[in-house]
Amino acid sequence: METVPAQNALNRIIAEDLISPANVPPFDRAAMDGYAVIAEDTYGATTATPVFLRMVGNVQMEMKPEINLGKGEAISIVTGGLMPQGADAVVMVEYTRLREEGNVEICSEVHPAENVAHVGEDIQQGTVTLKKGTRILPQDLGILAALGLAEVAVIRKPRVAVLSTGSELVDQSSKSALKIADVNRPVMMGALQDLGCEPVDLGIVPDEFSLIRSRLEEGLRIADMVIVTAGTSVGPRDIVPKIIDSLGKPGMLVHGVAIRPSMPTGLAVIDGKVIVSLPGYPVSAYIAFLEFVRPLLSELLETEFLPRPKVKARLSRRVAGVLGSRTYVRVRVAETRKGYVVYPVRTSGAGILSSLVQANGFLIIPEQIEGYEEGHEVEVELFRPVEHEENGR
Amino acid sequence: METVPAQNALNRIIAEDLISPANVPPFDRAAMDGYAVIAEDTYGATTATPVFLRMVGNVQMEMKPEINLGKGEAISIVTGGLMPQGADAVVMVEYTRLREEGNVEICSEVHPAENVAHVGEDIQQGTVTLKKGTRILPQDLGILAALGLAEVAVIRKPRVAVLSTGSELVDQSSKSALKIADVNRPVMMGALQDLGCEPVDLGIVPDEFSLIRSRLEEGLRIADMVIVTAGTSVGPRDIVPKIIDSLGKPGMLVHGVAIRPSMPTGLAVIDGKVIVSLPGYPVSAYIAFLEFVRPLLSELLETEFLPRPKVKARLSRRVAGVLGSRTYVRVRVAETRKGYVVYPVRTSGAGILSSLVQANGFLIIPEQIEGYEEGHEVEVELFRPVEHEENGR
Repeated sequence: METVPAQNALNRIIAEDLISPANVPPFDRAAMDGYAVIAEDTYGATTATPVFLRMVGNVQMEMKPEINLGKGEAISIVTGGLMPQGADAVVMVEYTRLREEGNVEICSEVHPAENVAHVGEDIQQGTVTLKKGTRILPQDLGILAALGLAEVAVIRKPRVAVLSTGSELVDQSSKSALKIADVNRPVMMGALQDLGCEPVDLGIVPDEFSLIRSRLEEGLRIADMVIVTAGTSVGPRDIVPKIIDSLGKPGMLVHGVAIRPSMPTGLAVIDGKVIVSLPGYPVSAYIAFLEFVRPLLSELLETEFLPRPKVKARLSRRVAGVLGSRTYVRVRVAETRKGYVVYPVRTSGAGILSSLVQANGFLIIPEQIEGYEEGHEVEVELFRPVEHEENGR
Repeated sequence: METVPAQNALNRIIAEDLISPANVPPFDRAAMDGYAVIAEDTYGATTATPVFLRMVGNVQMEMKPEINLGKGEAISIVTGGLMPQGADAVVMVEYTRLREEGNVEICSEVHPAENVAHVGEDIQQGTVTLKKGTRILPQDLGILAALGLAEVAVIRKPRVAVLSTGSELVDQSSKSALKIADVNRPVMMGALQDLGCEPVDLGIVPDEFSLIRSRLEEGLRIADMVIVTAGTSVGPRDIVPKIIDSLGKPGMLVHGVAIRPSMPTGLAVIDGKVIVSLPGYPVSAYIAFLEFVRPLLSELLETEFLPRPKVKARLSRRVAGVLGSRTYVRVRVAETRKGYVVYPVRTSGAGILSSLVQANGFLIIPEQIEGYEEGHEVEVELFRPVEHEENGR
């Protein structure tokens, strides 16, 4: 938990139930410019049959009404003005006419409470106004302002350390034509930032047991959670799971998941902190992030994320799933003359990061489904807007 | 347009088509640790009937293969290693055994191109990789890294000035028990920030022609667009439309819209810049922001926003629309034992900002619909997650 100024609180998560310290509005107020009246006095009033009330005062802003309103009387009042004792409604100025002799002509009847903002009708003192776990939206900033709260207690941003492993990798800043730019760290750090976390860069380490181990130890020391990419499969250089098990207890809990294309994902806990071991292929790593890291961050942030928008559309061609595995198909959804159509992105594998750029959504094929035929209506989770095809297809 | 470092580019909008300056990968590379081979040499290989190839070299990272591969030969190679001339596939190390005499036993056949990442297969040099108008997502940061681009040209954040009018209003910082805290500015500035704009605070001015006018002039001078709240209805203090018309041409284009509860919304253009005149009631102002300001910002940012997630649910009670007007009903959607249920938030008007806190979505009733009956299935636009009711209702 930490306290932040209200102007920096957008999209942060409320750390404890916010009990309203005041009523909003704090008094009964006029909700319109016009005349405070006793509603009963106006019954039957129309333009043709107006009611005449005696004007006995004037309420401006920042003024407490000095007089109580009696039967047959009216007091001029501005929006936000404090309602005088005795009055129970406001006639809008548009439906009135002030006569020279000090009478007000009322041309429309009002019912009790009409055009009055009652004490506490927006926010009642002592009630929970913003619940623990609420993501602070723009309207919630308005609530803080209404309550005069200049700061608010929010969940501290989880620090999540990100490590890339691989002797073939370099940072883009020190690029070498013969090595490969590490894409997983920028993707992971961006995804963490997007979800309201504080990414911590652990850099790149080559595939060496002691180097990976000491960097992971550092991550566990400085962060709330650690993400490590690559080295998690079953080849001779895939040493990350062994290293994690050497760090403490209970170690690796899961190694291998029934998700395509993210099978070699591993989940571990070391002395109460989570390490997620993601595949090195960028598409696999990103999909495993969505499936496993995102829900874990939801736990750390003690909030639920808003789901992605979904859209129903027809498949342009057959797509195959893998029985027993959940398959993430990268697709492009377009609005055509024939309605919404799903085009699976043609890719040659989990290494093709650009497939996540060409795609605007995921078609997730459940474990028990072999695939969908051409023309089948499916639901796609969108991460970019639907494309518009002028000419249809 | 402006250029920003890649690490600050998340959620910014690409300003011009990004043409890839390089191939990714830049050369044919091994996609697995193993042996570079001629695929044809491995045909028929199984554990029971292995094929023996002569080991003629070793490719590590950052090494150009010195020799060309001939028929019957294999070269040891690491993931990311450059494919030797002549080789067209890689056999994973798991399916091989190095024999003492310098031969490699191949126990699984590969087809041509297997386990090879081909030059440009992810990103092809000279093609459009990130289109103009793309919101930069985490995976797009990976693309920038893969291309070695440390910065990117994005659309400058639109500066949108926000002015509140009303003699009854005070800033929360200078609160007075008798005045009313301005909630519209914090809400609008938060909403602008959320959509990738730079809000500019024009403060509060009382309902005086010359004061509002000079502040609006300042807004037009320093910002790309101006939002002004309150004073836009038809009462005697509603002077904002007249003031806007006095600022230049063409002035007010629209005044009054068929949306509940945001009727007194006004849209104006002064010398090519947009002024949006929003109602003073916070719920009306926020809904008018969503209906009118959001699409205008989409134009300024030259991008399309991702739509809100929608959910289908059954109405817990009848809701009434207004024929001829689009009605925004604030609702709470909950998952119950009976499925998803929509509870309209009971509110007494457009002044009740807390209704936007209790609600998690909008049920938008179209112009031609009078209302929906209890039990009717409707679609709700969510701005907070669906609630979960343990016990159902």
